[in-house]
Amino acid sequence: MNHERRVDMPYKAFTLPRGMRDIDQIETAKREWLFDKIARVAEKYGFQRVDPSPIEKLETLEAKSGPAIKDEIYCFKDKAGRDLGLRFDLTVGMTRMVASRRDLPQPIKLYAISGMWRYDEPQFARYRYFHQWDMEIYGSESTLADAETISASMDILEELGLHEYEVLINSRVLMDSFLASLKLNSEDQRMEALRIIDKVHKIPREKVVEEFKGLGVNSDCLERLLEFTSMKGPPEKILEELDSYEVQGHLMLKGLDALKSLVDDLKAYGKLSKCFLNMGVVRGIDYYDGIVFEAYDKGGEDVGAILGGGRYDKLGLIYGGTALPATGVAGGVERLMISLDRRGLFPKIDVSPKAYVTILNDQVKAQSIALAQLIRRRGVSCDLELKNRPLKKQLEYADSMGIPYTLILGPREMEKDAVRIRDMKTRRETLVPMRSLEEWIKKIRG
Amino acid sequence: MNHERRVDMPYKAFTLPRGMRDIDQIETAKREWLFDKIARVAEKYGFQRVDPSPIEKLETLEAKSGPAIKDEIYCFKDKAGRDLGLRFDLTVGMTRMVASRRDLPQPIKLYAISGMWRYDEPQFARYRYFHQWDMEIYGSESTLADAETISASMDILEELGLHEYEVLINSRVLMDSFLASLKLNSEDQRMEALRIIDKVHKIPREKVVEEFKGLGVNSDCLERLLEFTSMKGPPEKILEELDSYEVQGHLMLKGLDALKSLVDDLKAYGKLSKCFLNMGVVRGIDYYDGIVFEAYDKGGEDVGAILGGGRYDKLGLIYGGTALPATGVAGGVERLMISLDRRGLFPKIDVSPKAYVTILNDQVKAQSIALAQLIRRRGVSCDLELKNRPLKKQLEYADSMGIPYTLILGPREMEKDAVRIRDMKTRRETLVPMRSLEEWIKKIRG
Repeated sequence: MNHERRVDMPYKAFTLPRGMRDIDQIETAKREWLFDKIARVAEKYGFQRVDPSPIEKLETLEAKSGPAIKDEIYCFKDKAGRDLGLRFDLTVGMTRMVASRRDLPQPIKLYAISGMWRYDEPQFARYRYFHQWDMEIYGSESTLADAETISASMDILEELGLHEYEVLINSRVLMDSFLASLKLNSEDQRMEALRIIDKVHKIPREKVVEEFKGLGVNSDCLERLLEFTSMKGPPEKILEELDSYEVQGHLMLKGLDALKSLVDDLKAYGKLSKCFLNMGVVRGIDYYDGIVFEAYDKGGEDVGAILGGGRYDKLGLIYGGTALPATGVAGGVERLMISLDRRGLFPKIDVSPKAYVTILNDQVKAQSIALAQLIRRRGVSCDLELKNRPLKKQLEYADSMGIPYTLILGPREMEKDAVRIRDMKTRRETLVPMRSLEEWIKKIRG
Repeated sequence: MNHERRVDMPYKAFTLPRGMRDIDQIETAKREWLFDKIARVAEKYGFQRVDPSPIEKLETLEAKSGPAIKDEIYCFKDKAGRDLGLRFDLTVGMTRMVASRRDLPQPIKLYAISGMWRYDEPQFARYRYFHQWDMEIYGSESTLADAETISASMDILEELGLHEYEVLINSRVLMDSFLASLKLNSEDQRMEALRIIDKVHKIPREKVVEEFKGLGVNSDCLERLLEFTSMKGPPEKILEELDSYEVQGHLMLKGLDALKSLVDDLKAYGKLSKCFLNMGVVRGIDYYDGIVFEAYDKGGEDVGAILGGGRYDKLGLIYGGTALPATGVAGGVERLMISLDRRGLFPKIDVSPKAYVTILNDQVKAQSIALAQLIRRRGVSCDLELKNRPLKKQLEYADSMGIPYTLILGPREMEKDAVRIRDMKTRRETLVPMRSLEEWIKKIRG
């Protein structure tokens, strides 16, 4: 066999590629808990779970974000020369799915929790392989659908015990028309301006000024822009300020109306107190074209937004050829886990089996196996000695595995038709008659 | 925005790459049910769940199966020129993980349920993107560990209601020494012979003869080989036949002893009645070097083995540089789902929310939203009208979504402090006072 021929070669460690990671036992158990919470909230809101293909045609990935996306994702040719790419989010796949399924009633609410890849520089809270939860509503133009996703997102955070957060909301329509009023006449200019606004707090002031100058924004306009994008606060207050804002126009009014209607809806959801309007929030993704929002864990802003989303009515049109209004939200699982860890919000995670059955010698082996099987059949997780070690080593092993009870079935115990049960914490041993074993199992099953 | 510029281009459908697939709402719900069953059995046996990275260095994937694996998997260079590949199973990743974690107590039992990719020709029950469940035990050389994985695998099938299956067992050590007795002196020859044996039932007899001739097996030896590999039956019977078999030798006896010991263990597990020894079963994977086994759904053999596994003591040595005995089992999720579907073993899958709240007009909108939120808070899945349609259309929608109850809150109902609840099946409507709503919710929550 190939590997047999290799064992005499000098040993080299096999490591993961840069930015990739395994998810170990403890983290998997935490994720199971987390995903279950997210799934419950999503399903209470009527979202149905799907899992789109992790591999897409490159053109599908580019359709959303333009050919520049190629630099940021994993893409490659398959053996037949097809250009493929690994998904960088779940929205593309879900939108392509729905756009190709005209048989589905609308609106249709879908969610997914799954892994994806981006060719980013690995850094704190950013990996090349990461996971997102994602909820999308297809087929409704109403701001009520936006409110529904925002409310569901907030309920996820509340359900996880993460109560200290803020949801920051804006409208791309409003921003776009405001930017047009600054004589940024082409859509490309406005899109570039949004990209600069998105990173205003991450780059030095001079750089911001310089980049806007490069776009042809004069210093008067720049001042107005920076003033506008620094507007933030409770919804009613900001709506009032926007109402009295000098620049108006059809689209700006449309954007403002959408914000007002959204705020009304969020009030009905009982969710307004943690929502804020913030004209500096634009989301750094090209395809949004309506309400946009993101949420931050208060005091944990260094991980970035813990969720973000918005409306993207035009994306479905590309994938399906007919109108498909859409709005959704996604959050990074790894970032969320950092927030939950910091606040101690994960429950105590225990992946150890509850019981361990020793095997003392070949004479009691069959009975010991049968004992483990009995315990398992009764629904209690149970491990079994698999290495034929001395009893002392078996007990040490059970200890190192964090198993709370060891069941010892030796010839003496068998003579008495009983089993010796050792509480690994107290080291106390009790002889339990076989006829009372079911009771003991019931007790530790809880 | 890029996609806005594209909407006036002629429409083209965006499809998935060949062999790829999305998992839709119904299939996802079936999988959730299936994965939960598998997870419960695995955890009862003390297996702990992990999820190794889907992307590996190509050299890691090749270490297991040689450079030829490149033709069968998705591999590519990343932007830094690294050779990477998408995993083709879960065993490689788990073994690499454990080999690099010398801090873990041994034995360590891990399981995973996840997706993987192979560049196969897509055909019935074979996709380029598919899923496996996989249980592995690292750190035990004992056949008891093999018995433990076989027993756990069988319990998974039983738990799923799939009672009609057969587990076919053999030993690679036995086969290897038998092949050596036929003057197949080099390991490469014997490995090639195993590959031919693995497909004996899939290719015409003449082709088998021809391929063995090509290996230098004369017709006398070929006859003995075909006779040997056709030995199959209940373990005790075959062990007896093997005992009296003319060819003997150190390794053959070692293989025979392992089979005997495994059969004893399986008897203790209460699992022997569905187990058979079958000298024609060799598993088509290079790295096995001990017990091998596979299981077939009786009457559903066309999907191939529904699970398979065995011992691969030498693989961990490659990844970790020191001995790491290992044995495990994996099964294809898609194949298993075909078997379960054919036998009608999936429960009734219902992904629809339980309730639907209408919105009749803007005057009752806030109260309708609040009603939906109340129902959700009480743990009942509930959808809400998001398109501002006439009531008739709202009811049609609820119907098309398979939602059993619609809650109508109009001005008249509000006057009476009540809600009208329509049973969508019987079309009967009941006026339920708000004070009795909690009772109704409790009833439908079940």
